[in-house]
Amino acid sequence: MDKTPSLLARIHDPADLKSVSPRDLDRLAAEIREAIVDAVSRNGGHLASNLGVVELTVALHRVFNSPHDKIIWDVGHQCYAHKLLTGRREVFGTLRRSSGISGFPKREESPHDAFDTGHASTSISAALGILAGNRLEGSDARAVAVIGDGALTGGLAYEGLSHAGQLGLPLVVVLNDNKMSISPNVGGLSKYLSRLSSRYVSRLFMKARYRKFRRVFDGAVKRLPFGGDALFRGIRRLKRAVKAVFYLDNFFVDLGFEYVGPIDGHHIPHLEEVFRDVRRFDMPVVVHVVTRKGRGYRFAEKDPGSYHGVPSFSITSGLGDGPPQPPPEVRGACGFTEAFGESLLRLGREDRRVAAITAAMEKGTGLSRFKAAFPERFFDAGIAEGHAVTFAAGLASRGMRPVAAIYSTFIQRAFDQAIHDVALQNLPVVFALDRAGFVSDDGPTHQGLFDIPLFRTMPNMTIFAPACAEELDAMLAWALRQNGPVMIRYPKAPCPSCDPHAAANLVSGRGVFLRRGSGARVCLAFTGSLYPAASEAACLLETQGIAADLYNLRFLKPVDEAYLADILTRYERVVCVEEGVTAGGFGEYAAEVCARRGCAARVAVLGATSLTHQGKRDDLLRKSGLDGPSLSAAASPQPPPSPTRLRRF
Amino acid sequence: MDKTPSLLARIHDPADLKSVSPRDLDRLAAEIREAIVDAVSRNGGHLASNLGVVELTVALHRVFNSPHDKIIWDVGHQCYAHKLLTGRREVFGTLRRSSGISGFPKREESPHDAFDTGHASTSISAALGILAGNRLEGSDARAVAVIGDGALTGGLAYEGLSHAGQLGLPLVVVLNDNKMSISPNVGGLSKYLSRLSSRYVSRLFMKARYRKFRRVFDGAVKRLPFGGDALFRGIRRLKRAVKAVFYLDNFFVDLGFEYVGPIDGHHIPHLEEVFRDVRRFDMPVVVHVVTRKGRGYRFAEKDPGSYHGVPSFSITSGLGDGPPQPPPEVRGACGFTEAFGESLLRLGREDRRVAAITAAMEKGTGLSRFKAAFPERFFDAGIAEGHAVTFAAGLASRGMRPVAAIYSTFIQRAFDQAIHDVALQNLPVVFALDRAGFVSDDGPTHQGLFDIPLFRTMPNMTIFAPACAEELDAMLAWALRQNGPVMIRYPKAPCPSCDPHAAANLVSGRGVFLRRGSGARVCLAFTGSLYPAASEAACLLETQGIAADLYNLRFLKPVDEAYLADILTRYERVVCVEEGVTAGGFGEYAAEVCARRGCAARVAVLGATSLTHQGKRDDLLRKSGLDGPSLSAAASPQPPPSPTRLRRF
Repeated sequence: MDKTPSLLARIHDPADLKSVSPRDLDRLAAEIREAIVDAVSRNGGHLASNLGVVELTVALHRVFNSPHDKIIWDVGHQCYAHKLLTGRREVFGTLRRSSGISGFPKREESPHDAFDTGHASTSISAALGILAGNRLEGSDARAVAVIGDGALTGGLAYEGLSHAGQLGLPLVVVLNDNKMSISPNVGGLSKYLSRLSSRYVSRLFMKARYRKFRRVFDGAVKRLPFGGDALFRGIRRLKRAVKAVFYLDNFFVDLGFEYVGPIDGHHIPHLEEVFRDVRRFDMPVVVHVVTRKGRGYRFAEKDPGSYHGVPSFSITSGLGDGPPQPPPEVRGACGFTEAFGESLLRLGREDRRVAAITAAMEKGTGLSRFKAAFPERFFDAGIAEGHAVTFAAGLASRGMRPVAAIYSTFIQRAFDQAIHDVALQNLPVVFALDRAGFVSDDGPTHQGLFDIPLFRTMPNMTIFAPACAEELDAMLAWALRQNGPVMIRYPKAPCPSCDPHAAANLVSGRGVFLRRGSGARVCLAFTGSLYPAASEAACLLETQGIAADLYNLRFLKPVDEAYLADILTRYERVVCVEEGVTAGGFGEYAAEVCARRGCAARVAVLGATSLTHQGKRDDLLRKSGLDGPSLSAAASPQPPPSPTRLRRF
Repeated sequence: MDKTPSLLARIHDPADLKSVSPRDLDRLAAEIREAIVDAVSRNGGHLASNLGVVELTVALHRVFNSPHDKIIWDVGHQCYAHKLLTGRREVFGTLRRSSGISGFPKREESPHDAFDTGHASTSISAALGILAGNRLEGSDARAVAVIGDGALTGGLAYEGLSHAGQLGLPLVVVLNDNKMSISPNVGGLSKYLSRLSSRYVSRLFMKARYRKFRRVFDGAVKRLPFGGDALFRGIRRLKRAVKAVFYLDNFFVDLGFEYVGPIDGHHIPHLEEVFRDVRRFDMPVVVHVVTRKGRGYRFAEKDPGSYHGVPSFSITSGLGDGPPQPPPEVRGACGFTEAFGESLLRLGREDRRVAAITAAMEKGTGLSRFKAAFPERFFDAGIAEGHAVTFAAGLASRGMRPVAAIYSTFIQRAFDQAIHDVALQNLPVVFALDRAGFVSDDGPTHQGLFDIPLFRTMPNMTIFAPACAEELDAMLAWALRQNGPVMIRYPKAPCPSCDPHAAANLVSGRGVFLRRGSGARVCLAFTGSLYPAASEAACLLETQGIAADLYNLRFLKPVDEAYLADILTRYERVVCVEEGVTAGGFGEYAAEVCARRGCAARVAVLGATSLTHQGKRDDLLRKSGLDGPSLSAAASPQPPPSPTRLRRF
C-alpha cells in the first residue's frame, strides 16, 4: 500500500532539496536508503558505507550549493546518496553495470562530481587545490572534503591537512567517523578518535558552558592593563587549561584547523546547523561527524564489515540466503586470494621468520587465517601502503621474511618505498599483489594494470605470475627462500586446474610449456592469469588446423635470455600476452631481446592499451582483445590487419 | 701549534666513545666539526645539516649500543658525525668520491648503518619494522629514528607514527627540530613545532614544578573513595587541565607517544640524561631536540640554507670567495634548472592561470623568481610530493595550469597520485622533472632513472625530453596549452647550445633530425639530455668514415608511429639511447613498433641497465656506456660483441 508520493522522485537537483520541509527529511532519508538497498541488492556494490552517510549527504546538499561549491568524496564508495540527489535517480538501477553509472564519483558523469576518487585519502589535497583555484579566480565558492576515519590513516590526508593549516583557506573537512576502515580500523589516530568520541554525550552541554565562560573571561582579560609578556603567556596557558576542561585540544587544532564535534551524523537539523555555522568560517575547519555504517538496514548494521562491498543479495534475507554467490571475502578456497592465504599459512608454520603485512585489507587479501594462527607475526598498517612497505623492509633487515599482501592498484602508493627501501637494498620482502590485471565492477581507478612495468624497473626484483594455485604455492615458497625482493601477481579470479607436479617445478628465469606439439610455428607466451584464455585460443587454433604451443612465462623478471632467445628463434611467430599495460610490459622487453639477439620470430605484443569502462573481468578481457577468440585471431599466422592502435597507455 | 692529541683519532668504534671523559666531549665535538668542514670543503656535500647534529650524534652513541641498537638517520644527509664515530674516520676524506664512502648511510659500508636512507620520512617506518623484528626474535635491542622537522611533513612519517602508536613498541623518535627543511619549512605542523619550541626556556623549570605537583595530586587521587565514572572523568579532565598549564599536550601524545622536550640539542650531558631515561621507557617516545643548522661554522650558521648542500669551498672565506663554482642554486642561467625557471616566469606573465608547485625544493627547482613575481600563484607543499600532485590536480580541475616542479627521484613518491588523480582524469597538470637521469655525487637513491617507464604507463600522458634551453621553453609553452597532463624531464646539467628557431618548432608526436646526411645507414635516436654525447658519437663515427644521423626524439609519448616506422625502415641500424633504465623505456617500445610494423632496421637499445655507485654525472654516463665514445662504438654497423648483459633493472 505504498501510495505516499515519493519525495526522492521530485528531486532532480540539489536545489530541489532545499525546498523540502524539515519535517519530511527523515522520510526522504528512508527513501534514499530504500533506493540504495534496492540497487545494491541487484547489482552488488558498497552498501554499509553508503547507508551510513545518507543524512550527512542530505545536510551537505541543503547547506552547500553544488556544483558551485564542490563536495569531494574520499575513496568515493559513499557517493550513492549524492548520486541519487544530483539527477541520477532514474539511471541508478544501472549502477556499476557495464554501460551504467559508476559506483564512484566521475567528473564525466555529472558537474556535481567535482573530482574523481577511488583510492583513499586524496580528498583533502584535491579540495584544497580546488579552493586555492577558486580563490585565484576571485570566487568565494567553498570546497568540502568528506573523509572517513579509515582514510585518515593515509599519509596523504595528513600532508593535505598540514598544507591546509599553512594556507589557512576556509576548507571544510568532514571527518566521517564510523570506527571502520574496510577492516576494523587501526593506528594511533584511530585510538585517539575513539577517545574524542567517547565524550560525545557530554559535549553539547559542556560546549555551551564553555562558550559562556569564554565570554566572561575574554571580557575580563581585555580590561587588564598591559602586564608584559609573562602575563600574556600566563593568560594563554590559563585559557588553554580552561579549554582542556571543556574541550579536548586535538590533533586538528594542532595543525591549524578549527574543530567542531563530534556530532551526530544521523541528525539532519543538527548537521545543517553546524554546516551553516561552518560555512561562514574564514579558516580551515574539521567537522567531526559520528555515523553508523550500514544504518537503517539491519543486516548491514549488525555486520558492517561483511556488508562493505557485496555482490547481489536478497533484501529480505541478507547475504545469508541470497543468491549462490557469497561475498568475495568468504568465497571458497578456489580463487587465487584463498590459495595465497592457504599457502602463506602453511609456509608460516614451517618458517618462523614469515610475517604478513596488510594495509587495511586483511580479509580482501586472504590473511585472516594467518592472523588467527600467528597474531604476533601479522601486522595491519592501516590504509598506508607506503608505510607498510618500508615497515616490511625494516623487518626484512632484521632477518624476517615479510610478505606484504596489497592489491595491485594500491601498491602504486608504495612505488618509491618498494624501490628505495626494498629493491635498492636488496631486502627479502615478498610483494603479494592481489587483484592484478582487470578488476570487476569498480572501473579504471581499481584496475591492476601497472604493476608489471613498475616492478620491471626495479633492480634486484623477481616478478612471478602464477597460472594456478599450485604454481602460486611453489612461487611463494621459492620467494621466501630468496635473499632479495620478489613480487607475485595474481588476479581476482578462480584458480584453473593444472598438473600439480609440473606446477611445482620452477627453474630460475624460465617459463614452462603447457602445450608443445611438433612443428608448431606459433607460440603463445602468456602471463599466468591468462592461462585459461590462452588455452582456449590454442584449442580454437587447433580446430582451424593451426598448431600453437603454449608457454607460461612464470618469471617476468629476471629472464634466462638464452632460453627465451631459443624460443624466439624456433617459432615464426611469438605472441606475448600480458594482463597489464603493454607500455613497459613484458612484451616490449621480448621484442627488444628479439632485436638484440637477432632472433627470427616475429614478436606480437598484446595487453591493455587503452582505458576500459567498468565491467566484469571477463568483459574487460574481451574488450581488450585478451579473451580466447581474440587471442586465437591475433595468433594465427595471418592475423587480420590491425587498425592503427590508439596508444593511450 | 696543534699538538693536543686528537680525541677523535682514538675512536674506532662507538664503544671507545663511552670511555671519553664528559669534560672532553666538547673538544671531541669540535674535532668532529673540524673533520666535517674539512672534508666537505674539499669534496662538497651536506654541511649545515651535519654540523647541527654533532652533539646529538655523540650523545646517541654514548647511550645506545650500536650496532646492537639501531640508529636510523632520516634522509641520511646528517650522518657524517655518525660515520666519523663508527670506524670511518680514516677514509672520511673519500666522502662522496667515485670510489669513496657515501654521503648517506649504507648497510654495505658498515654494520652501524642500519638502514639505507636518501629520500625523506622513511626512518620511523623502518625503525618500527626493525623493532618489531627484534621483538619477534626475542631481542631487547632498541631502534632510534632521527628525523628532522622537515621530513616530518611527509605523510610517510605520519603513517609510521600512527602505526607505532598502535603497536606500542618502545620506539625512540628523535625529532631534530632545526626550523628548516631544505627550503625554510612550511605546513601546519611546522607552525605547531614553533609554538612548542618557543616555550623552551621556561620548560625545564616548569617541568620540575609539574612533577612535584603530580606526585602530590596522584597521591591524593589514590586516597579518594571510588566515586563512579563521573568523578573519574572529572579527575582525568582536571589532570589534563593542570598538565596543560605546565606542559603542552601535543600531536605526538595524541598519536600514543610519550613526549619529552624540547631540549637543547647542543648540550651533551643533558641529551645523555634524557636518552638514558628514555632507554628505559616501555612505550614509544618522541624526544624533541632543538638544534641549530650549521652550528660551529660561522658562514653556515649565518646562512644554513645556502650551506645545506655545497660544492667544494674555501674554509676561511666560505662560499663567497671559494673556488669558482658557486652553490647549485645560484649557478648562472646556463643550466636546465635555470632555463626552466626563466621560461616559467615568462609564461606566468603571459597567462594568469599558470601556478607553480614545489615540494620543499623552491631553489633547487628554479622557482625562486616565479615565487617572487607571483607569490599568490606559488605553493610550497612541504616534503609531500603525493599531496603536491593531488593538490595540483585540484587546481587544474578549476581551470588553472599548475606546474609541479619535482626532482625525478622524488616524483616516485607521487606515482599513484600522478596516475589516479591526474592522468585518469586527464587533467592539465605539467610535471617538470628536474635531475632526470644520472645525478652527481649522491648515489643510487638520488638517480632519476625511472621516470620514463613510470610516465609511459600513464594514460593521456605526454612525455617531453628537451635537448636545450630553447626546446625546454617551447615544450613548456606547448604543455601549458594542452588540456591534459604533460611531463617534461631534464637533467642537472648545462644547456648545450642549439638552433633556437629549429628548437621552437614542435610537431606533435615527432622528433627532429639534428644531423641528417644522405646515405647514412645508422641513426642515433636519443632522449634530449644525451644530445651532447650523441653529437660527439656522430663526430667520432664520421672520423671513422661512418655517416650517422642524429634524431632527437623530443616526444617519448605519444609517438607518431608512422613517422617512427619510416625511420625504422630507412636505416639499417637505429640505436635508441635514453638516460634512464632500459626496462620499460623508450627503446623497448621502439623495438616493439619495429616488430609490429615489420620495419627493416635492427634496433639497439642503450640506457641504464645496472646500479651505479656514486660519481659525477659524466662518470656515471661513461660507466653506463652512454658517453660519446661508447655510443659511437655501439652505433657502428659492426658493434663489438657485447657480453651477456647483467639485467639488474
